Amino acid sequence: MNRYKYLKEEAYTGNRMLPELNLVLFTWGNVSFADHDSGVFAIKPSGVSYSLLKEDDMVIVDFEGKTVEGKLRPSSDTLTHAVLYKHWNDIRSVVHTHSTYATAWAQAQKDIPIMGTTHADQTKFNIPCAPPMGDEMIEDDYELQTGFQIMNELSKRYIPHTQLEMILLGNHGPFTWGKTMNEAVSNSAILEYVAKTAYLTLQINPQSPLLKDTLIEKHHERKHGVNSYYGQK
Amino acid sequence: MNRYKYLKEEAYTGNRMLPELNLVLFTWGNVSFADHDSGVFAIKPSGVSYSLLKEDDMVIVDFEGKTVEGKLRPSSDTLTHAVLYKHWNDIRSVVHTHSTYATAWAQAQKDIPIMGTTHADQTKFNIPCAPPMGDEMIEDDYELQTGFQIMNELSKRYIPHTQLEMILLGNHGPFTWGKTMNEAVSNSAILEYVAKTAYLTLQINPQSPLLKDTLIEKHHERKHGVNSYYGQK
Amino acid sequence: MNRYKYLKEEAYTGNRMLPELNLVLFTWGNVSFADHDSGVFAIKPSGVSYSLLKEDDMVIVDFEGKTVEGKLRPSSDTLTHAVLYKHWNDIRSVVHTHSTYATAWAQAQKDIPIMGTTHADQTKFNIPCAPPMGDEMIEDDYELQTGFQIMNELSKRYIPHTQLEMILLGNHGPFTWGKTMNEAVSNSAILEYVAKTAYLTLQINPQSPLLKDTLIEKHHERKHGVNSYYGQK
Amino acid sequence: MNRYKYLKEEAYTGNRMLPELNLVLFTWGNVSFADHDSGVFAIKPSGVSYSLLKEDDMVIVDFEGKTVEGKLRPSSDTLTHAVLYKHWNDIRSVVHTHSTYATAWAQAQKDIPIMGTTHADQTKFNIPCAPPMGDEMIEDDYELQTGFQIMNELSKRYIPHTQLEMILLGNHGPFTWGKTMNEAVSNSAILEYVAKTAYLTLQINPQSPLLKDTLIEKHHERKHGVNSYYGQK
Repeated sequence: MNRYKYLKEEAYTGNRMLPELNLVLFTWGNVSFADHDSGVFAIKPSGVSYSLLKEDDMVIVDFEGKTVEGKLRPSSDTLTHAVLYKHWNDIRSVVHTHSTYATAWAQAQKDIPIMGTTHADQTKFNIPCAPPMGDEMIEDDYELQTGFQIMNELSKRYIPHTQLEMILLGNHGPFTWGKTMNEAVSNSAILEYVAKTAYLTLQINPQSPLLKDTLIEKHHERKHGVNSYYGQK
Repeated sequence: MNRYKYLKEEAYTGNRMLPELNLVLFTWGNVSFADHDSGVFAIKPSGVSYSLLKEDDMVIVDFEGKTVEGKLRPSSDTLTHAVLYKHWNDIRSVVHTHSTYATAWAQAQKDIPIMGTTHADQTKFNIPCAPPMGDEMIEDDYELQTGFQIMNELSKRYIPHTQLEMILLGNHGPFTWGKTMNEAVSNSAILEYVAKTAYLTLQINPQSPLLKDTLIEKHHERKHGVNSYYGQK
Repeated sequence: MNRYKYLKEEAYTGNRMLPELNLVLFTWGNVSFADHDSGVFAIKPSGVSYSLLKEDDMVIVDFEGKTVEGKLRPSSDTLTHAVLYKHWNDIRSVVHTHSTYATAWAQAQKDIPIMGTTHADQTKFNIPCAPPMGDEMIEDDYELQTGFQIMNELSKRYIPHTQLEMILLGNHGPFTWGKTMNEAVSNSAILEYVAKTAYLTLQINPQSPLLKDTLIEKHHERKHGVNSYYGQK
Repeated sequence: MNRYKYLKEEAYTGNRMLPELNLVLFTWGNVSFADHDSGVFAIKPSGVSYSLLKEDDMVIVDFEGKTVEGKLRPSSDTLTHAVLYKHWNDIRSVVHTHSTYATAWAQAQKDIPIMGTTHADQTKFNIPCAPPMGDEMIEDDYELQTGFQIMNELSKRYIPHTQLEMILLGNHGPFTWGKTMNEAVSNSAILEYVAKTAYLTLQINPQSPLLKDTLIEKHHERKHGVNSYYGQK
């Protein structure tokens, strides 16, 4: 039996969820799933159609981005995933999509402001839009630097990656992550929902107020706090 | 045979209608169905996926929000439902969703103005957006106070809950209710339709006029008046 | 065999096309199909769900709006259909929907300007938005007067109903018609497409120019002119 | 065996992809597929519904637009396809749709500015909107001149058709092409995606910056450059 079977299963299932959640056109998205003990992750091969994808096509890559097992070339975004796993040892899954509304906010180079309880159910923070990288980063190892751009933006804002599992990259699109595959993929769908409702909100009322702190706290705590009472025990 | 079987059936069917009507993402919505004689209602368990939901998972709760029967934790919004049943003895179903356009109006903290006959077919009133609660209400028993916030807003505007079966909660989202489960769930879909067309109307023409009184009366009366002639006898 | 079988078949098929073309929510739409020799038409019964509708539920009504055959109450919009058949003896089908974008233009009380060749493929005219009726018309026989409001608006603009098979009623929604059921129903879908693209066009560029006359002529003539070369002979 | 079987197969498959990719309403679109050695292409017959279309309905036409084989009348846009094949001997497929967002940009007579890496993955250039043709071109051989309008616009901007496989025609809609059928059809879907996200981007932030040159280069080169590393070898 293949020692990486579970990793491939999770990555495969996650990748298949992207078109079902209407988050991708063609092959424009990728999900990976990591095992920190082995220091590897499974990721979608580059440019392969979701409908043709097989579990065994998933490529096993180490945290330096080197292929460990697999016949296909891994996603061109592989190094971005690798950097995040290397530095954040408590996440097991990373997702990248070009979902429409999240991408539009990224192209507009605007943070998504926190304006509703649905957003607060997820995180207490505005969804940051990291600026496009400097030319030297782009011309260096682009996908590797993309990972650093994500981490730097969170650092600059003093936001731990455990309290905000999603980000926009200016002119590019969204990345999300999580402690499980299901969480990371759901975060991509939730980000798209939040991006769409925030867009509509500001079209209806450009002066829409931010959610007030007591509501941010309340909604976040009831879902994620010590005394959370959302979901099953 | 379970004495609450009918309540569970109705609540279950209603909850399953939400994703079919495209009103929810993941588990973000809940439908309840009440029996005023027994003083209880059936409601969706918290955080359970619609596709995994079984009729018997519905939780039976009394009008104080105490679980009477069921192994799962009821929806985190249970107390809001309970308050409405306790005070409005002529409604049998309450629905909460995060449907996109209705939520955007709620986040914009704007009433949805009555601009078309489709709106008037439903109610003669603008759909009110209740302001976010004061901090003391939020920090008290939040979901219970949410129910009072709904009732207070209608009172403040002198609108009986029988003539307006839907409301927006500022920065949160919509609640609807009705004399039957089908009516309460339909109200959520109708509210989403009205929210979307009102949004588009004001984008096309920010000076769009309100529907005039004679048309409001005519459309409402032909559907709900003493001499109504809409639908079958 | 029922002498009205063909009428019922056509009306039934047309009504079932509305949800397939995403033009209606719930029961909010109706298609009728007429026979001018018999002076009757078949129309959807009022408030019956599309999924439960049976061919034999179609109601046969004369051009004064009196039921000739059928157990159910006909659509509440029946008199509007009747008036149009009575005055326009070359149309065989009338359709009313509340499709989202067309309704938004109606609520905004704006004509849909002709800005593209797709619009010109259909008609050379802006899609008119008739103003809401005067109070005396509304308080009189509302649905009958709605028919007159449609005819009056075309007359006022000197547009023959054979050259423009669609109209918006201010604050209400669209009506379309045609020489066949398929044409009338297609017109509702085309109107919704034209309403959506015109909306987007003006959002992208509020100064978007109207389509110039030579293009209007060219596209209209290649589809509908004496020397048309669109479609099969 | 029919000597044009492969051409018909490709054209048929491509035409069937248009409704699956949500790019057409009714029959409003056409895909052709050419063989430069034989100097002919297969194209959809005019005005035939996608659901009724059969592979053998495809019409074989030469590069002057004359029917070589087939019982049905070819698409009314046939001459536009013919002109492009005649002048560009390295493309094998041409696609025309009326997809909503691309058509809206065409009606607004605006180029789609390059604002994201998804756009740069496809081409380094803004998507041009060719102005509506002059009256003499329209009144001449309209569809033939449409082909010249496309070629002239690219020439005027010094953009080779191999580096930009899509264009908007003012007040009309999009045309795309490619070295394979799959590429040409995908280009239509990608154009619609790019048109929608660019629209949303400018709604969110009317001052959204263009993508900077280093990012345009990087994304384009990683997919199409000599050292591309996107997709499988």
